[in-house]
Amino acid sequence: MGDHMKFSLDLAEPDHKRPSLSRRCFITASAGLAGSLAAGAAAADSLADVPPREDGADLSGHSERSQYVKLARIPESGPGKRNVDPADAINSKTPLDKLFGGITPSDLHYERSHSGAPDLDPAMHRLLVHGMVKKPLVFNVEDLKSMPSVSRVVFIECTGNGWENWKKADANLTVQNTHGLVSTNEWTGVPLKLIVDLVGKDAGSHWMLAEGGDAAGVARSIPLTDEILNEAFIAYGQNGEPLRPAHGFPMRLVMPGFEGNLNIKWLRRLKFGEQPWMTRWETARYTQLQANGKATQFQLRMDTNSVITTPSGTMAIKPGYQRINGLAWSGHGKIAKVEISTDGANSWKPAQLTQPALPKAQVRFQMDWVWDGKPTRIVSRSTDDQGNVQPDRKSFVAAMGSNALFHYNAQQTWSVDETGRVRNVLD
Amino acid sequence: MGDHMKFSLDLAEPDHKRPSLSRRCFITASAGLAGSLAAGAAAADSLADVPPREDGADLSGHSERSQYVKLARIPESGPGKRNVDPADAINSKTPLDKLFGGITPSDLHYERSHSGAPDLDPAMHRLLVHGMVKKPLVFNVEDLKSMPSVSRVVFIECTGNGWENWKKADANLTVQNTHGLVSTNEWTGVPLKLIVDLVGKDAGSHWMLAEGGDAAGVARSIPLTDEILNEAFIAYGQNGEPLRPAHGFPMRLVMPGFEGNLNIKWLRRLKFGEQPWMTRWETARYTQLQANGKATQFQLRMDTNSVITTPSGTMAIKPGYQRINGLAWSGHGKIAKVEISTDGANSWKPAQLTQPALPKAQVRFQMDWVWDGKPTRIVSRSTDDQGNVQPDRKSFVAAMGSNALFHYNAQQTWSVDETGRVRNVLD
Repeated sequence: MGDHMKFSLDLAEPDHKRPSLSRRCFITASAGLAGSLAAGAAAADSLADVPPREDGADLSGHSERSQYVKLARIPESGPGKRNVDPADAINSKTPLDKLFGGITPSDLHYERSHSGAPDLDPAMHRLLVHGMVKKPLVFNVEDLKSMPSVSRVVFIECTGNGWENWKKADANLTVQNTHGLVSTNEWTGVPLKLIVDLVGKDAGSHWMLAEGGDAAGVARSIPLTDEILNEAFIAYGQNGEPLRPAHGFPMRLVMPGFEGNLNIKWLRRLKFGEQPWMTRWETARYTQLQANGKATQFQLRMDTNSVITTPSGTMAIKPGYQRINGLAWSGHGKIAKVEISTDGANSWKPAQLTQPALPKAQVRFQMDWVWDGKPTRIVSRSTDDQGNVQPDRKSFVAAMGSNALFHYNAQQTWSVDETGRVRNVLD
Repeated sequence: MGDHMKFSLDLAEPDHKRPSLSRRCFITASAGLAGSLAAGAAAADSLADVPPREDGADLSGHSERSQYVKLARIPESGPGKRNVDPADAINSKTPLDKLFGGITPSDLHYERSHSGAPDLDPAMHRLLVHGMVKKPLVFNVEDLKSMPSVSRVVFIECTGNGWENWKKADANLTVQNTHGLVSTNEWTGVPLKLIVDLVGKDAGSHWMLAEGGDAAGVARSIPLTDEILNEAFIAYGQNGEPLRPAHGFPMRLVMPGFEGNLNIKWLRRLKFGEQPWMTRWETARYTQLQANGKATQFQLRMDTNSVITTPSGTMAIKPGYQRINGLAWSGHGKIAKVEISTDGANSWKPAQLTQPALPKAQVRFQMDWVWDGKPTRIVSRSTDDQGNVQPDRKSFVAAMGSNALFHYNAQQTWSVDETGRVRNVLD
């Protein structure tokens, strides 16, 4: 049981021939996969061990979820404020512990709003594009749909993701609680660059105001770097279908790699200018309070991050074979490497990454582990293709102080006690 | 208006700097984008042209679709048999004309069943793996979830997709009617190769029987080629969540590139042997009747295909700028090239492909076109990275005869009449 095993599947090369499992691996896997697998093997050579076939429901216009599948986000009113009245909720977190692969189902993509989720009438909605331009224009949804489009799989992450663990760790949190403000969808829309060229932006304009059509009117000043001009787009599609109201229907700005609140939902206005507008969303809100009491503005990029989703907080494991599974992402580019420690960050082993690892998208990682039944801590650490390494918590807090609230990307540690119970801890 | 325009966006290189639109392109686009865009531009420099901001609904556990979005599949009872009693439906087609990007929403993935869609209890369900193996085993869903997994974006296509146009063309069909039996999801599950190694398949076994848990008990013999051993997997996840009942919950076989009915849903059994089992699903059904009256068995791979989704059947266009948009896919590998003809297959121009173009997945293509208002026909033609070219209809029918029903992949032609009405035609 204490033997280490390693499935030699090469997930990185799906088109190549995979080497066979060794005899030793086969034995360890059979013993390690526990319970029903070994028990089933004893008298398995008959359909008597398999339930009878079942007649089904009529075919329909939509495939709904199984009655046996219970999946939901958790609405919260702030860090540590769960089980709230829905009217007080300001965000709703994705159940990372119950999902597979890299795509988040559209109805479970995390939600964050300052004044609820309006369902705007797309026939009435307009996007005004003006300011320092030669030819101000108003676009409706059909205008956008008739133009050249891009489709791209990218993560969007609330700048507050991880804020639960800034100061202390609640041992009863799940990964949905700690990291559920990040999701990955395939978004489709019109490149910002195309809009910029259609209105004829002045060369002197290096900032853009993006404003939402929600009652709060969230508005952010966005620097027009080459990267942003080349990658941002006005999305009308999400995982193949029109945006859902909670995610900005009928149009939102998508800013690959940058903080969630820049991805303005219910987008009604883009204005070009020379300077940032200093809206309340970048003065009173979304500024980063440093250790010295001063605040940093315009910390816009989401950093290199990762979290183990199985096993994770509140789960229970048994001694023997475990398949560690998790998600990694970086606003700088592609995830190049994820390492896992099963001994409290003393030693590290490389995890396998599901390919293709797309830039600025969540990537699934996996690793085999045989738990010996002794208390320990498990941690993941990601590195992106720009060389950014996810920091350990001590270094992170030393650099950021403990007054801050946003851009938490320290390594996440889960402890495992002698009963197999998994808990959220600081390090 | 007659000027041709070309947006010079390089969709293939999202990370590189895109060249600006030329002055000429800007003018053509402004004129060509028609109606509201140019009208809006006249007095656009004010928020008075944009609807007021709206308060929203409370945040919740799920983001539902907008009340303004109407999307549904079309259940049918066979070629040309629409508007049927749901109890008679045998398939339900994806609305390709209303979707964006490459991912199909899970509830709109096409559905095909011989005895409805059972919602099996995952706690009771078992997969028996036996036959020519050293150690027959029974797996439950939790066994699979605890094992190494792969996630892969692939299309699944019913072998009957396109059958509407085998013999004649109904001018009133939409692309949902003609091509709606293909969809693309991200699937997650356990590699077949891992199961094969766990049970210790005999070297002499070159075939596998896969059987479903639906009342019809669809069962197919699958040749264990290197390609299939390396790429097939037992899926439990679909677009990040558990499979939906219509798509095989709690487990299905995924066979990238091969006909839909081999992707056995509600999978209850894999049996290894020396020869195909000659089930009724490969003798009475799913055989291909040739021109000489003989039938071909085991024509398993889905060929290179493509279809223009905008504009497509029953749509209406106006003279001027159009953005042609469509989907291409191949069971052989990646789509390498899509060409579009706007003059009835006399001349062809390359379309832009959304990148990354994944192997055995649907890929979005686009091209600019300025319609001069004269009747014409538009056609797409795909080529994959193995050099397979989608055939024109005349060559296809000459090769396949007109008795056949499956594996239709001839080029799809849409006619445009002088009023702009788009219709399904044979060529």
